[in-house]
Amino acid sequence: MTDILDAKATQPLRGGPCFSLKHRIQRVIWNVVWGLFASWTPPPLHRYRVAILRLFGAKVAWSAHVYSSARIWFPPNLTMGEHSCLGPRVNCYSMASITLGKYAVTSQGAHLCTGMHDIEDADFQLSAKPIVLEERAWVAAEAFVGPGVTIHQGAVLGARGVLFKDAEAYGVYVGNPAALVRYRSHPIEITTTTE
Amino acid sequence: MTDILDAKATQPLRGGPCFSLKHRIQRVIWNVVWGLFASWTPPPLHRYRVAILRLFGAKVAWSAHVYSSARIWFPPNLTMGEHSCLGPRVNCYSMASITLGKYAVTSQGAHLCTGMHDIEDADFQLSAKPIVLEERAWVAAEAFVGPGVTIHQGAVLGARGVLFKDAEAYGVYVGNPAALVRYRSHPIEITTTTE
Amino acid sequence: MTDILDAKATQPLRGGPCFSLKHRIQRVIWNVVWGLFASWTPPPLHRYRVAILRLFGAKVAWSAHVYSSARIWFPPNLTMGEHSCLGPRVNCYSMASITLGKYAVTSQGAHLCTGMHDIEDADFQLSAKPIVLEERAWVAAEAFVGPGVTIHQGAVLGARGVLFKDAEAYGVYVGNPAALVRYRSHPIEITTTTE
Repeated sequence: MTDILDAKATQPLRGGPCFSLKHRIQRVIWNVVWGLFASWTPPPLHRYRVAILRLFGAKVAWSAHVYSSARIWFPPNLTMGEHSCLGPRVNCYSMASITLGKYAVTSQGAHLCTGMHDIEDADFQLSAKPIVLEERAWVAAEAFVGPGVTIHQGAVLGARGVLFKDAEAYGVYVGNPAALVRYRSHPIEITTTTE
Repeated sequence: MTDILDAKATQPLRGGPCFSLKHRIQRVIWNVVWGLFASWTPPPLHRYRVAILRLFGAKVAWSAHVYSSARIWFPPNLTMGEHSCLGPRVNCYSMASITLGKYAVTSQGAHLCTGMHDIEDADFQLSAKPIVLEERAWVAAEAFVGPGVTIHQGAVLGARGVLFKDAEAYGVYVGNPAALVRYRSHPIEITTTTE
Repeated sequence: MTDILDAKATQPLRGGPCFSLKHRIQRVIWNVVWGLFASWTPPPLHRYRVAILRLFGAKVAWSAHVYSSARIWFPPNLTMGEHSCLGPRVNCYSMASITLGKYAVTSQGAHLCTGMHDIEDADFQLSAKPIVLEERAWVAAEAFVGPGVTIHQGAVLGARGVLFKDAEAYGVYVGNPAALVRYRSHPIEITTTTE
């Protein structure tokens, strides 16, 4: 994870920029490149999009799937394991590191949000905490994962679920705020090994 | 409803395609046509957009309203009764059939999601179940309706409500997960018969 | 606030327009102007976007921040105090007046929704009620504020929170429907006075 936030220097409530000029230029370039070369590409070109992400510092396995409409805030903070997936319109708001383990899946419109404001601070400081999706975790359609959350192995956050605390391994969470409703059968073996 | 999913053949967790090549080409053509000829059209041209949908196999009454920013995943699975409505930015994710009865309304940003994964299956199989909105049902702004749900006659799902089970006739549901909070007065007669 | 809605004349369920032709033309012009001259502008040009909003009748302080991807339904109904903010992709659905006090902040993807339908009315009439965010209120990422709601001074609606009733001063609300979970320390003094 690249530390990009120097909270002491920021005054979000005053409208001042929270990031260095260099960092902001880096993100402008990133957005222009993704917009021109990736955002319109058809689904099967996952490997090509992974190559672009790697070029910008993301640590992404070649077998990972990243849809063209996914939005990655800052690639150097993104790590994706084998066969992990950022689905269509996923918002990967990587102010802090975001890590997807092997076979971790985020479905369409999910939001991984590492940034927050300190509501007890007079300057309303911006802060950021890492998000981790362990192996085989699933964040379903349009669910929201808050700053600092770890979704442990095989856990599921149901569609539109909103999670601000950690999810137990193989737990199934639904609702806003998300509550544990049951457990997934485990361990689940991956039955096929070909690709 | 056109059966498009041969679940046994798919391996979503491996990143394999879940749909036949023919089906995928069909959807590419659909998306290109909607993008070029409908997505930018002003609100009053509902009848024109209905014509395009019918051309692609949707069963839509001429009096139905479909906004240009609505997204229909697969038209042959969509059925819309008289004066029913898909509002702006509605996501009509029709992997299985989606049926709107007469005067059924979906407001801006609503999501009708027929697709899901089997979390007890090692291959994380994709499956799909039909959604039905009966006559005069209302799915309010940015609400979410899950796979297999029937919203019975006159029932209301409030803004941002998230529903995974059926809604009783004339029930009013709010929250995530949505809970029944009261009943709408019924029966409601349609007072005007013009148009 | 400009009264734009003559509910008695509308028949939303019949698909009739809810607004006068003059009003609708006004909004078409507004959308074209914002689309051409503002929607693509980089973040720092807040003052330029404020100028465009003022030109169309919004009462916005020069120090306010309005991101280019924010969507303002009808500018004359918008009032923004000093250092208030409409973040990226905020949906400011101003069928009735929307007022942000000094330092009130709405984060990315928040939805301020003043419009609703009367579910007990046979014609499903459209109505609209004002929304007020008092000084230093914060509506966090992708939260939803319903018609008629006042968020009192310093109150917080957490990410993805959905609020249909008023929020107490300095209360912190989370969930859908949003519930009061604690209070923010108060009063918070603004520590810096520059700018």
